[in-house]
Order: sequence, then structure tokens, then C-alpha cells
Amino acid sequence: MTRAPSPLRSWSSAGGLRTITFGPDQPLQFSNGEKLSGLTIGYETYGELAADKSNAVLVCHALTGDQYVASSNPVTGRPAWWPRIVGPGKPIDTNRFFVICANVLGGCMGTSGPASFHEDGRPWGLRFPVFTVPDMVRAQAMLVEALGIEELFCVIGGSIGGMQALQWAAAYPRRVFACCPIATAARHSAQNIAFYEVGRQAIMADPDWRGGDYLAEGVRPSKGLAVARMAAHITYLSESALHRKFDRALQARDKISFGFDADFQVESYLRHQGQSFVDRFDANSYLYITRAVDYFDLAGDFGGALPHAFADSQTKFCAFSFSSDWHYPPEGAKHIVRALIAAGAEASYVEIDTDKGHDAFLLEEPAFEHALAGFIDSAASARGLPAGVRR
Amino acid sequence: MTRAPSPLRSWSSAGGLRTITFGPDQPLQFSNGEKLSGLTIGYETYGELAADKSNAVLVCHALTGDQYVASSNPVTGRPAWWPRIVGPGKPIDTNRFFVICANVLGGCMGTSGPASFHEDGRPWGLRFPVFTVPDMVRAQAMLVEALGIEELFCVIGGSIGGMQALQWAAAYPRRVFACCPIATAARHSAQNIAFYEVGRQAIMADPDWRGGDYLAEGVRPSKGLAVARMAAHITYLSESALHRKFDRALQARDKISFGFDADFQVESYLRHQGQSFVDRFDANSYLYITRAVDYFDLAGDFGGALPHAFADSQTKFCAFSFSSDWHYPPEGAKHIVRALIAAGAEASYVEIDTDKGHDAFLLEEPAFEHALAGFIDSAASARGLPAGVRR
Repeated sequence: MTRAPSPLRSWSSAGGLRTITFGPDQPLQFSNGEKLSGLTIGYETYGELAADKSNAVLVCHALTGDQYVASSNPVTGRPAWWPRIVGPGKPIDTNRFFVICANVLGGCMGTSGPASFHEDGRPWGLRFPVFTVPDMVRAQAMLVEALGIEELFCVIGGSIGGMQALQWAAAYPRRVFACCPIATAARHSAQNIAFYEVGRQAIMADPDWRGGDYLAEGVRPSKGLAVARMAAHITYLSESALHRKFDRALQARDKISFGFDADFQVESYLRHQGQSFVDRFDANSYLYITRAVDYFDLAGDFGGALPHAFADSQTKFCAFSFSSDWHYPPEGAKHIVRALIAAGAEASYVEIDTDKGHDAFLLEEPAFEHALAGFIDSAASARGLPAGVRR
Repeated sequence: MTRAPSPLRSWSSAGGLRTITFGPDQPLQFSNGEKLSGLTIGYETYGELAADKSNAVLVCHALTGDQYVASSNPVTGRPAWWPRIVGPGKPIDTNRFFVICANVLGGCMGTSGPASFHEDGRPWGLRFPVFTVPDMVRAQAMLVEALGIEELFCVIGGSIGGMQALQWAAAYPRRVFACCPIATAARHSAQNIAFYEVGRQAIMADPDWRGGDYLAEGVRPSKGLAVARMAAHITYLSESALHRKFDRALQARDKISFGFDADFQVESYLRHQGQSFVDRFDANSYLYITRAVDYFDLAGDFGGALPHAFADSQTKFCAFSFSSDWHYPPEGAKHIVRALIAAGAEASYVEIDTDKGHDAFLLEEPAFEHALAGFIDSAASARGLPAGVRR
């Protein structure tokens, strides 16, 4: 069923940022019971939607990502974040597929969240409803419906994008032909909650956070947000990758300074990660999205048994993990795949041997790219889509 | 050679805190070239020193520990931190051994550091010389000499206490009969530097840090220090221990709050760890001690080859590691033991299988206690000390 466009839905591409805003007839329903009228979603698309609308791929981005999966961000100028995976002749071939990527709910790149404006003219701040991964996916589903797409050929994402992909398959089993959860888990672990809590406390400890009202007061908790980013960033790299990249190499000096400057390259690198992050990300968005991920426990939403989340699923799954990923270790992916098999779903599992840690899915990993391309091609063939030309 | 007490050395036990203060004839020489006149060391002892001074054991405490290894701290009221290891009938039996534990250089429990007073009447703050692990050990050696002890029967410590034990054996090979480095490494890794840097940035981001002058201004960077402690604390526990202790259990509630309170027990636990820490520890001390540990690279001080640090060593070593310790993983202990063997030293290695992570050395680990007791007894026998009675 393709719905006619709502008269109360508006599309915009101001400043190069494409958005859709839903009218009051289509509020977003949150898990906590609240509703949001006037939901705006920032998104980008690549390629052409087939006449029968059979070739749509939804890419779900990670915690601090954006919708610019295959093109540079017009606001920040940052390059495409997944250029090895999405593009002409790439595993997700934009010559074959219509690729959609939406800024996640609360994600501060065009989609409604704590940094956007309440109808009272002030930023939402902490008044924005605390949302969940299911809420993120519900918002994405509204966009997909508005684009007239009934069934997605594939939903794919890494890290918390992978959680969204799993949630899509669980919530809308008839609307997801294929699903690729990558470097992710069906539930956030105690250790991961702990790391996110450190980040949140760092933000909230910054006096410029102002109880979340910093935007209205014209300040930003940049120092706290930078510390949060630094702590999280360590979890994205493996110990061996840090050793290989930095070991104990000194930064632009021959010997230690006996002081608190960034003597070591790894310190300089981390400080840079923190500083460059605060220029492009909102601190309250960080609080909200990490909270949604803390709350993610897919089995918990299905009576405590993960296979129930995939009962009668017709979706073809391929889960990917990376051997040195300690943020979302391979064991979490195997847990998902065991549940899929228990549910009778069609599931493949690929574990990539790498020392690059969690971030491996964003980096050059030819084995990952080959395996993903193989799965996409196989699923496209099963869906009856025309073959593409790999570059 | 036992030196006569210096007329310019003073001993004190004010407020239950035992200290020794060295006179201007005995400045502490720092690795960075500076000297400190009037060094004070807070320390505690247990048991009786034998007439021939053959039974002294030096315990080196960890990053945020203190000298109260076997008795409660008279300042904080906290209980002894190693009661299963040090005490009557324990592996380090205070009925047999004279146990010394000194607050580490910069450690804010009686020993000189950034929180103690400069002769100008103001706290040292960042004017205190940035010190190293060798400097910590040099200060301890001054205390040991002042106590009239030429050779220590054993130097033992966990975590950065283990680094000090290694440094003792390397710097003073004829003054250490036996040495137990526990849950430690001969060099701080890039990942560990990264975690410490996050903690330092959290402290320095707190406006109450005041460029290190907070004590003079009557404030304390409590929020930043709490965040630093929280980040570090995660590294002290294994992922599986966090899972076993907390998993995703909620704190005093039936369901999630859709907010930023400590919904999860692991959050509540971490917040408590942060809050209780700031009551007992100085933020600048944290900066200085973590920096000393970042700088620790024992091989680097011996021409880049760790075996050189132990050339001609007569010391009996037993290194311990814990299987789930990812802060100082077993591989680091094996690296030490391989170097000891390459140097021709007498070395044993015990790896304890546990899920408790780095903190295991402080917790109930009967296999660790048995193995340690066996090593101590064997070394005591080799040293010709009378046998003890194990309880």
C-alpha cells in the first residue's frame, strides 16, 4: 500500500540539507507515551527508486554519524562516512539501489531532537522526550512510508545502526527483505552502559551544560563533551590497533616534557578527536542517543527471548562482526545469529579477522567488503533485482 | 651499612599519621633534574624488625591506595586495603615479617606532593616537580635507609605498586632479595595512556581545577575528579565481572525511567565510586601519579632492552597476573618473565584464572593467596628466616 502524500507533510532542501516535516496528523509516538507533533527528519538519498519500488536500501548510521553516507556533509564539510560500501559499483551499488540514510532521531543534523526548536521558540533541551531505538526506527518508518516505499530491499547499519537494523526486522518483518546488522548487539552490555554513563557525567559535570539549557543561554559544554568523546573513542579501537598506531611514540618531541602537555601521540590524537567532535555535535543529542542505546534490549521487548523477536521472519539476515571489536564483541553477533536460527530465520554470519577494533566496519577491510557484496548480490538475485556491475 | 639517624631528619605521628621528614642535607633528586628539600613520607609499619634486619617487606600501593595495607586509615576511616595478604598468619605474615608501606610520592596521604605545602605557605599545586616511578622508588629507598634496613627481604606490589617493585629490583638489585610484581607491566600501553589522559582532561576541564591552584582558592574539582575515577574504574573490572555483578539490572526501580537518573545498577555503582573517591583523593595527585605511570617504560631506561634492567640480578622473582585483567593483561607479565629469564634471573610466573579483572589482586582469590604464600615461604627459607605458622 502506497499512501498518498499528506497535505500536512512538507519537504525542504534549505542549505543543502534535505528534510521532511510531518504534520500534526502524523505525530511520532514515543515508547515513553509522549507524542511529538511536527517531526522533522533530515535525510539523503542516492540512486534511483525503481518503478516497482523494489530496490530501496535503508542505511542506519552510528551514534555520531549522519545521513551523508555517500556524499560530503554540506553543513560540516566532512566527507562521506561509508564511501567503500555505498556508491557506484560499491557493495551497496547506487547504480542499482535507491539508498536512503536518515539522520537518527535526536541526531542534530536536521532531525528533531533536543537541539531543535520547540514551538515556544526555545530549544527543546531536556524537555524533548527521552526516546528509544524503537522510536528511532518508528521515525525512519514514517520517512520510508512518505517516500512511498512499502518494503525495503535491505536495512543495514553498523554499531547502533545495526541495532536499528535489527529493530526494523523485528518491528516490521514484512517490510524488510534483507537485513545486515554489523558490529552490533541485541542488547547493550553493563560495560557499555558504564562507558556511556562516564560520558554523560562528563557532559553534565560541565557548568556550561546549564542543566541542558545551554543553547538558550548561548553557551556549549564543549569541554565535557570532548571528554565524553575521548572516553568513547577508546572503545572504538582495539588495544592492538592503539599499540600499532601509537605505541608509546612521542608527539613532536624527542623526549618527555615532565608535564601535562600531550607528550604522547595517543594523547594528541585523543584530544583532537574530542575537539573536532564538539564542533559538529550537540551535547544533549549525545545524552539522548546514548540513553536510547543503553535502553536497547531487543529480547526484553519480546518477552525476554530473543528468538521471539524474529518469529516467522521471512527476512534474509547476514550479521557481521570483527574479531578485535571489544565494544560490540563477536559474541554479541553470535548471540543474534543463534536466536535467528532458533527462530527459523535465514541467517548467515561473517566474522572478520582484524586488529582494527569496532571502527573496522568504517575502515578498509576488503574481506568485509567482499562478503557484504556477496550477500547483497545474493539477496538482490533472490528478490529478482537486475544484476549490477561491481567496480 | 646502617647510617646513623640524621640530625636533620624528623619523625612524627601527629593525628595517627606516621611521617618522616628529611632535612636539607637529604634532598630528593627527581628524574627531571629538580631537587626537593624537606621531603616528607607518610608510612606505616607492621610487625617487628628482626635484630639482623633481615625480615623487612616493602609493600608498594596502587594508584589511589595508601600506606594502610593492614590497618584502617586514621584519616579516612577506610579499612585495611590488603587484609587477605598482610597480617598475622597471612601470606605476608606480620608475625614473621616487618612490613613497611609508604604513601607514594605525590600520594596526598602524608607524603610530599602537589597538595602539600611549599615553603611559601601555599600548596605546591603544579609547581611540584613532575615525577616518575623511579623517583617514587628513590623516595621509598630514603625511608628504608632511614629505618636502618640495608636489604629488603621482599618488595611486593600490585598494579602501579608492581611497577615500583620492578623498579626497586632494577635500581637496587643488591637490596631486594625477593620481588613480586602483581597485575602489572614493565611499560604503560597506549590504551592505558589514553584512559589516563581522559581522566586528566576530565579534571582539567573542571573550572574548579583553577589551573591546579584550587586548594589555594578553597575549591576542589570534584566533578572532574569523579569522572576521571569512573573512567578508570571501568578498566579495573572485566567485562564478564560487570556482566555478572550488574548485567542490565535496574537500580531500585521496576522499569526504566526514560531519563538521565541512574536507572541501571552499574550507573549507580560507578557514580558512587566517583563520589566516594573525591572525598579522599587530591585531583592534582591524580594528575601527577597517572603521569608518572604513563612515563614508566623500564626497558627505555635500560637501553631499550628489558633484560638489561635485570642484568646480574640475584633477586628471586615471582610475577602474578589475572586472566581477565585487561588493564594490565597477562601478556605484560609474561613479557616481564621472559626478560627475567633472558637476564638469567630466578623467575616464577603464576597466572590466576579469574573473571574479576584487574581488581582481582585486591579481592578474594584463594589460588592467588596460596601461590603467593608458597613463594614467600620458599624465599624466606632461602633467606634463612624462621618458618611461620599459616592461619
